[in-house]
Amino acid sequence: MSEKSPNEFISIEEIRQRALEVLTERYGVKAAENYCGKGVGSITGSSFKRNEEALNEIRLRTRLIHGINEVDTTTNVLGVHINTPILVAPIAGSSVSYPEVIQGCNNVGTVCLIGYPQPKKTMQSVAEITDKKIVWIIKPLSDLEELKSIFNAAEDAGCQAIGMDLDSAAGLQQYTHSSTWLLSWSFKPVEELQEIRSWTSLPFVIKGVLSVEDAEQCVAAGIDALVVSNHAGHALDCTQSAVDVLPEIADTVGRKVDVLMDGGIRHGTDILKALALGAKGVLVGRPTIWGYNAGGAAGVAKLFELLTQELTRAMQLTGVSDVKDVPMSILAS
Amino acid sequence: MSEKSPNEFISIEEIRQRALEVLTERYGVKAAENYCGKGVGSITGSSFKRNEEALNEIRLRTRLIHGINEVDTTTNVLGVHINTPILVAPIAGSSVSYPEVIQGCNNVGTVCLIGYPQPKKTMQSVAEITDKKIVWIIKPLSDLEELKSIFNAAEDAGCQAIGMDLDSAAGLQQYTHSSTWLLSWSFKPVEELQEIRSWTSLPFVIKGVLSVEDAEQCVAAGIDALVVSNHAGHALDCTQSAVDVLPEIADTVGRKVDVLMDGGIRHGTDILKALALGAKGVLVGRPTIWGYNAGGAAGVAKLFELLTQELTRAMQLTGVSDVKDVPMSILAS
Amino acid sequence: MSEKSPNEFISIEEIRQRALEVLTERYGVKAAENYCGKGVGSITGSSFKRNEEALNEIRLRTRLIHGINEVDTTTNVLGVHINTPILVAPIAGSSVSYPEVIQGCNNVGTVCLIGYPQPKKTMQSVAEITDKKIVWIIKPLSDLEELKSIFNAAEDAGCQAIGMDLDSAAGLQQYTHSSTWLLSWSFKPVEELQEIRSWTSLPFVIKGVLSVEDAEQCVAAGIDALVVSNHAGHALDCTQSAVDVLPEIADTVGRKVDVLMDGGIRHGTDILKALALGAKGVLVGRPTIWGYNAGGAAGVAKLFELLTQELTRAMQLTGVSDVKDVPMSILAS
Amino acid sequence: MSEKSPNEFISIEEIRQRALEVLTERYGVKAAENYCGKGVGSITGSSFKRNEEALNEIRLRTRLIHGINEVDTTTNVLGVHINTPILVAPIAGSSVSYPEVIQGCNNVGTVCLIGYPQPKKTMQSVAEITDKKIVWIIKPLSDLEELKSIFNAAEDAGCQAIGMDLDSAAGLQQYTHSSTWLLSWSFKPVEELQEIRSWTSLPFVIKGVLSVEDAEQCVAAGIDALVVSNHAGHALDCTQSAVDVLPEIADTVGRKVDVLMDGGIRHGTDILKALALGAKGVLVGRPTIWGYNAGGAAGVAKLFELLTQELTRAMQLTGVSDVKDVPMSILAS
Repeated sequence: MSEKSPNEFISIEEIRQRALEVLTERYGVKAAENYCGKGVGSITGSSFKRNEEALNEIRLRTRLIHGINEVDTTTNVLGVHINTPILVAPIAGSSVSYPEVIQGCNNVGTVCLIGYPQPKKTMQSVAEITDKKIVWIIKPLSDLEELKSIFNAAEDAGCQAIGMDLDSAAGLQQYTHSSTWLLSWSFKPVEELQEIRSWTSLPFVIKGVLSVEDAEQCVAAGIDALVVSNHAGHALDCTQSAVDVLPEIADTVGRKVDVLMDGGIRHGTDILKALALGAKGVLVGRPTIWGYNAGGAAGVAKLFELLTQELTRAMQLTGVSDVKDVPMSILAS
Repeated sequence: MSEKSPNEFISIEEIRQRALEVLTERYGVKAAENYCGKGVGSITGSSFKRNEEALNEIRLRTRLIHGINEVDTTTNVLGVHINTPILVAPIAGSSVSYPEVIQGCNNVGTVCLIGYPQPKKTMQSVAEITDKKIVWIIKPLSDLEELKSIFNAAEDAGCQAIGMDLDSAAGLQQYTHSSTWLLSWSFKPVEELQEIRSWTSLPFVIKGVLSVEDAEQCVAAGIDALVVSNHAGHALDCTQSAVDVLPEIADTVGRKVDVLMDGGIRHGTDILKALALGAKGVLVGRPTIWGYNAGGAAGVAKLFELLTQELTRAMQLTGVSDVKDVPMSILAS
Repeated sequence: MSEKSPNEFISIEEIRQRALEVLTERYGVKAAENYCGKGVGSITGSSFKRNEEALNEIRLRTRLIHGINEVDTTTNVLGVHINTPILVAPIAGSSVSYPEVIQGCNNVGTVCLIGYPQPKKTMQSVAEITDKKIVWIIKPLSDLEELKSIFNAAEDAGCQAIGMDLDSAAGLQQYTHSSTWLLSWSFKPVEELQEIRSWTSLPFVIKGVLSVEDAEQCVAAGIDALVVSNHAGHALDCTQSAVDVLPEIADTVGRKVDVLMDGGIRHGTDILKALALGAKGVLVGRPTIWGYNAGGAAGVAKLFELLTQELTRAMQLTGVSDVKDVPMSILAS
Repeated sequence: MSEKSPNEFISIEEIRQRALEVLTERYGVKAAENYCGKGVGSITGSSFKRNEEALNEIRLRTRLIHGINEVDTTTNVLGVHINTPILVAPIAGSSVSYPEVIQGCNNVGTVCLIGYPQPKKTMQSVAEITDKKIVWIIKPLSDLEELKSIFNAAEDAGCQAIGMDLDSAAGLQQYTHSSTWLLSWSFKPVEELQEIRSWTSLPFVIKGVLSVEDAEQCVAAGIDALVVSNHAGHALDCTQSAVDVLPEIADTVGRKVDVLMDGGIRHGTDILKALALGAKGVLVGRPTIWGYNAGGAAGVAKLFELLTQELTRAMQLTGVSDVKDVPMSILAS
C-alpha cells in the first residue's frame, strides 16, 4: 500500500484508489467497491447511474481571451461564509468518523452536513468541536414530539442550520432489496412542514427535492434552502438526477431560497456545471468517504483542495471569475 | 442452495436467483437463463429486449410534500375485484404448475390468465379449485367449431373471462428459428371476431394488440378488454414494446374497454409507469415463473407481495394515492 | 460437424453456423468470420456496421384483425417475374461457385446478379445453364472499347439485364487498407453514362447509388433500375446505409425505375422494412455465401425459402397481403 | 517485428501497429497505448474521446456520376503553399525527433507546427534545416519580456509563422491528475493579445479556440489564423470537440482568417469532413507520432501520403474536385 501522506496526493483518482485499498481491507471487496465505484442505489441502480450520466452529457464551452488568472471560490450558504462551494453530504453508516470529517471541513473552510441517526458517542464528540460549521439532517419521524426533541438537540449541538431529508419518508433501499428498513417515518403535508419549520429559528433545509412543485411548496412552508437530490439512488429507482431538474427548480425558487444539489459530483467540472445550472453549492458524499479513508481529516481536506483546484481551473478556462456568478452560457446547448 | 422459506425472501432479485438455481438443476443452464435472464423472443430477440429497454427509458418525478402514507392498490378488471393491479400472464410450457400458481393468486387476491393448450390433467385440477379468479386465453384456431367447443369448456371450468391471443395467428417463434410450430391457427377479420365474441356472455379479452387501429377494431367487435403486448417477443421480431404504444391506445379506447399490458414488468416502478401510461393493470410472466420455481404457491404469493410493496413505495414517492388514478404527470417528459 | 441435409435447416442462424464451420475449415477462422460475422468494409468498417444498425433501428407496427392468411410474394424486377423479392447480390472472390448459386436461384424462382471479373471457366459454365435469370454487373472500366466488348459478352451469356457498379470507380477497399486494388476504372459523367447505356437493348442497372442527385442523373441517362447500396462498406468508409436514403430516392425516382437495395438484409423483417421504405426488391450477399457454403445449390434455395417464410410471416403480422404494395405505415415513426 | 521499409506500408493501421511495437519496446505498454490508442486527455478523458466520437457521428453522401477522376489537394495556409491540407500538430514530449518530422513534411510538401518548449539542441538542428515550412507554437508566458525574446528566436529560426496555444494558460493536465505542471503562463485579455501580435510581422496563429466569442476576439486582435482544438483533451475535461464548434466559427470568421482544426483526425474521411465543416486544413498529432516511430522521416512522409490518398478517394466518391472548395452538402444532415 501507498505510504504517501494525504498532502502528497496529486489527484482525486489517487485518493479514490487509496480509499479502495483501505476499505477493501476493512470491509471486503464488495463493500469497498460500493463506496468507491459503481452499481449502487435502490433496486436496479438506475437513479444512481443517472447522476454521473447526466453530468457527463453536459459539455463546457471554453473562453481563453480574458485576464481571469485568479478566481473567487467563496460564497455564502445558509447564512454561513464558505471558502469553496463544496459541502459534505450526509453520509450513512460507519464509513466515516464525523469529528475527523468536520475537522477536514474546518481546515478548508466549508460546511459539513450530518445524517441522523448517529451513535450518541459520535454526537457528543461533534458537540465538543469548536468553530465547526455543521448542519444536522434529521429523518422525517412520524412522532412529532420525538422529532421536536431532536430539533432541540441539534440546536444544542451548535448547528448552523437544521434540515430534513424528506425523501426518506418511505424508508431507504439498498441495491436489489424490495423491502426497506423498519422505520416510523412519514410524508408531511405542507401545513405540517410549516409547523415543523416554526420549531427553530435556525435556517431550515429540505433535502431530496426533485420537482418544481415540491420546491414551491417548500418556499410556501418557509424553508430557507433546498438540496436537489435523489439520495444517491436510495430513495426510489428510476428517478431523474438532480442535474435533470436543477435548472427549472433554480429558475423558479432560486431567488427566494438557497438551492444546493448533490449526486454524481466527482470533479471540478461537475461542480462548475451544477453552478451554471443554478446551484449555489454542491454536496459530495462518496468523495468525502474516499478522502476520509485515504487520510482522515487531512485526507478530507486534501480532497476538498483538489476539487477546488479543479474547479478553479475549469472556471479560468470558461472565463468565470466568481462562483457566485456562473452563467449558463458556459454550457454547450 | 438457500434453505429460506418463500416468506423470508426480501427481494425480487432473491426470488429470481433462487429460481435460477432450481431451474438450472431441472432443465440445465441455458433453459434456466432463458426463463430468468435475457436474450429470448423470436429471431434476433429485439422485440423482447425492447420491452425492458422502453420501460427503463422512462423516469419518475418524485413528490414528497403530501400526506399520502397509505395507498389504495385495489382495482377492478374484467368485472373482477383485485387487491393489486398485477395479474399472472399466460405462461407456455411446463415451467409452472397452474393449480399452485392459481393458489398463489388467490392468496394475494388477483387474477391468473391461463394459456391454451394445457395438459388435460392440469385443466381438471384447475376446474376443481374453488373461488379461483381465472381467464382462459385461447389460441385463434382456424376451425371455428373446435374453437367454439373450447369456449364452452372454458365456461365450464369456471372462468371469469375468456380471451384469445390473436398475435399467435401466424404461430410463435423461438429464438433464431425461422420456422414456427405446426399449427392450424389463423387471423380473424373483424366480422369473424364479432361472431366469436357472441359465443359467450363472459367478458372477452384480445391479447397481443400493438396498434391503435387494431384496438379500435376490437372495440367495434364488442371486446371488453385488451392486453397490449408483443408476446415477450415470440410473435414477431422488431416490433414495438407495449409501452411504446400504450399511451395512444389507452387514450383512444381506454374509456370503453379495460386496457391491460405486459412485457418487461420486473419491479414496482415498471408497474407504476404502465399505469401512468394508461394501463388499468399489468401482467407478469417471467416473474411468476421465478416465484413458482422459488417456492410454489407461496413463492408466487411472495413475489406478488414484493411487487405490490415496491409499487406502494413508488406511489408514495410520486404522490399517488390510488392505482385507479395515476396521472401521466408523474413521468418525466 | 452437422450432418443435416440443406432441407433440414430450420433457421437462417443454423445455416450461418454451418457455413462458419465449413469456411473456417476452408479459409481459417478470420476469413470465415469476415464472411459470417461482423467488422468488415473499408477502413473503420463504419459503412458496413451502419447497414445492420439502420435496419435494426426500425420497428414494425403489427396488425392482427384481418383475413390475410395467405400472401403474394411474387413481383417483377427488370422485366423478370420472380417468386420472391429477394435477389442474389454480386459476390466477389472465390466464396461461391456461380453455377450452383444460379441453380439455387432457379429452384426458388429468383434472379442472380453476378460480379465482374470472374474466371472465364465460371463464365462458360454460367453461359451453359438454361432458363437462368442472371444480371451481369460490370466494373466501370476506363477503356470504353473494352467495356463495350464486355457488354457484348454479357448479352451472349444470356443475361436478362446488364449493370454497372459505379461505386467501384475509385477501386474497392479491404478493412483498414488505405490503398486500393490496382485498376483502370473511372467515374462517368452523365453524357458518358448515356452513351454506355445505348450499347444494349437489355434493361440497364446502376448499382451503388446513395444520393437522390445521382438517382436523378441515372434517370436522365436512361437507366432502368437502381441498386441503392454502399457496397457492404467496401466503396467508402463513413457512408450512409441504403436504408438511410432509400425513402427519398424511391419517392423521387421510384415511379420511373425499379429501385432495389442491398446492405444488412439478414431476415424477413429486414426485407419487409426495405419494401416499406420503397424498394421493389432486395439483394442478399453474405446470406447467399452462407447458403452456398452450408449446402451448395440446395443450401442457397433453402436460405431463400427461409427468408421468404420469415417475410411471409412478417407480412401477415403487419397486415400486408402483397409485396408489390407495402405501405410505409407499417413502420413505427 | 515487421521488417517492412516505410514505403511498403499499405495502410495507416499498419503504421499504427508498427509504432505500437516500437513504442512498447521503448517506453513500455502503457505509454505506447497512450500514444497509439485511447483513453487519454485530462481527468476522465471525455474531451479526448469526444474528438473521435464527433467525427464518427458524421456520415458522407456519395456522388458517382461525374468526371472527377483527378482531384486537387493543394492549398495555402498562413501564406504558405502546401500540397495537402494536412499539417503536423505540435507534439509534446520526447515521442518524436523534430528534424526528421520536418524532413518528412518537406518530402510531402506540408507544414510542421512545433511545440514550445523544446530542448535547445533540437531547436538548433531545426534552425539548420533549409527550405523548411515550420510554425513555432509558443506557450502564453506571463513574463512578456521573456515571451517577446522567444518570438525573436522563432523569427531567427526561420519560421513561416508564429503561434500561441492560449488554451495552455491554466497549464495542461495528464489523465486523472488534478494538479497541473508548475508554470508561469497566463490568460491574455484582448488588448494584451493585440500587443503580442504586434511583435512580429509574420502571420500569427492562436491555437485552442473552441468558441465563436473567442474567435471574434482573435480577429479583433489582428490574428491571421485559428486552430480550433481542445488540445487532445489536455486543456480541460468535458469540453466540446473542434468538430462540434467548427461550423459556427468558420461561418463567423472564416472569410477573415485561416481556420484550421485538430482533434481525432485519423483517416482521409475525417479530413474531408473537417474541410466540409469549414476548416482550411487539419493538424495531425498522434498519427505523426505513429509515422515517425514506424519509420522516421520516411514514415512520416508515408503516413501523409496514405492520408492524402484516402482523402483523394473520399473526394472522388463524394464528387469533390478541390480541397479549397468542399461543400457542406457532402455531409448527411
